[in-house]
Amino acid sequence: MRVALLIEYSGKRFHGSQFQAGVRTVQSELEAALSTFWRQPVRAIFSGRTDSGVHAAGQVVHFDLNIAPEQFDKWRFCWGVNGILAQDLSVTTAQVVPDDFHARYCATSREYVYRILNRKQRSALLRDRTFFIPRTLNLTAMAEAAACLRGSHDFSAFRSTNADRSNTNCDVTRVELLKLAEEQVEFWIAADHFVYNMVRIIVGTLIEIGLGKRTPESLLKALLDGDRDLAGATAPPWGLTLNAVQYPEAYKLFDQSSDLVSCPGERS
Amino acid sequence: MRVALLIEYSGKRFHGSQFQAGVRTVQSELEAALSTFWRQPVRAIFSGRTDSGVHAAGQVVHFDLNIAPEQFDKWRFCWGVNGILAQDLSVTTAQVVPDDFHARYCATSREYVYRILNRKQRSALLRDRTFFIPRTLNLTAMAEAAACLRGSHDFSAFRSTNADRSNTNCDVTRVELLKLAEEQVEFWIAADHFVYNMVRIIVGTLIEIGLGKRTPESLLKALLDGDRDLAGATAPPWGLTLNAVQYPEAYKLFDQSSDLVSCPGERS
Repeated sequence: MRVALLIEYSGKRFHGSQFQAGVRTVQSELEAALSTFWRQPVRAIFSGRTDSGVHAAGQVVHFDLNIAPEQFDKWRFCWGVNGILAQDLSVTTAQVVPDDFHARYCATSREYVYRILNRKQRSALLRDRTFFIPRTLNLTAMAEAAACLRGSHDFSAFRSTNADRSNTNCDVTRVELLKLAEEQVEFWIAADHFVYNMVRIIVGTLIEIGLGKRTPESLLKALLDGDRDLAGATAPPWGLTLNAVQYPEAYKLFDQSSDLVSCPGERS
Repeated sequence: MRVALLIEYSGKRFHGSQFQAGVRTVQSELEAALSTFWRQPVRAIFSGRTDSGVHAAGQVVHFDLNIAPEQFDKWRFCWGVNGILAQDLSVTTAQVVPDDFHARYCATSREYVYRILNRKQRSALLRDRTFFIPRTLNLTAMAEAAACLRGSHDFSAFRSTNADRSNTNCDVTRVELLKLAEEQVEFWIAADHFVYNMVRIIVGTLIEIGLGKRTPESLLKALLDGDRDLAGATAPPWGLTLNAVQYPEAYKLFDQSSDLVSCPGERS
């Protein structure tokens, strides 16, 4: 039986999502908790890796379990595993899925948000999830530059030079720069897939544009030339959150409408 | 010379705002940093105390300094003191104020927000600043009940029994219950002053109403009777944030319009 999980984590104290010997990773902590709960070894497959320090609000994972579907009580399982996991990792919901579901290969789109705090002084409250930039950003220039990322392009220029030579063509379906209250700026991006460090390199380049260190046009030039040296520095991981992963409608994944509990209704 | 500060802190690792011997408090950390920066002993006066675990996004503090006003460089000071303070305490801005300004006695209004996370499973990302309630809250009943708090009332019923017998009459100017994205609920309240534990007892009572454990009318009854035993339990501190403190217009306190730096403009 295959189960899909929607999980959250704060990246701060994890060395990334994927297993590495000797360090604390999301995968190793999650697999340990799942194995403890189910009393059988469990291997978790992620929709994709997130780097050391990167957060997730909607990471999707699947695992296989040697039990009958009728033995699976979703909420008993979520409560149980959340009781085992450390506070910086949690399971939001779970669902039995067909055996052909695969968290990584079936994903049709991933959505990330990068948060910037653009004010004069650092913030005690927002420090863990925003990148603090004390100089004023020209958001109009940044938004203008970012617009060219929409659509299907080769993102070689926005790929870490350490990355393997996998498919660098990404179809970007959402690019948005939002100005929020409390001097927060959010950069949202969704695509069918991402190359290694793509969002952080794009954001690093946009920040250089916002600071007037490079022209908005230089981003398009980097994109067209596919040269990593033409893009900007890699923005730090703690501003980045994997917000959501999409799957084909047919899986009806985490369709929350069925999870709603009715209001307590009449009062005692 | 008197200086007013706008400060932020995460309450998690502080034993409240006010000095207590032998424990880490906001006042002791702030006074130590100010004294180090100015090389003279500095005593900080807060607009009001916040309990152990309660956060502040807009706490106001004043202190006196033995220097000439022309020696005071606001941003040099903010950068300097933020470099000395630990990451969970920060100074947002500062301003030279008249000697008759007093952070506590001149404050005309305080605004608090209490954040609730109302979903089935705990959140790894929102845990530090929200109170997690896994049972569905009837927000309509809560908002209905809270409406009676508006205006001037005796809040004895919503005062910790440990509190001293100070003025219990509070003029509540804002009461609002907001439903946000990600299953977050915010309760906003502003008043000229607050009695000890008032927001947390009000929220605790509202939550009992939302869970159907008491009627919306029971809150009005507690308010009218002034009996602490008729109100609900005290909600935990980590959901609460002191958002802002208001002062008379004449002080033009932290008038941010003059702080804005123009956009970088022409690109290189």
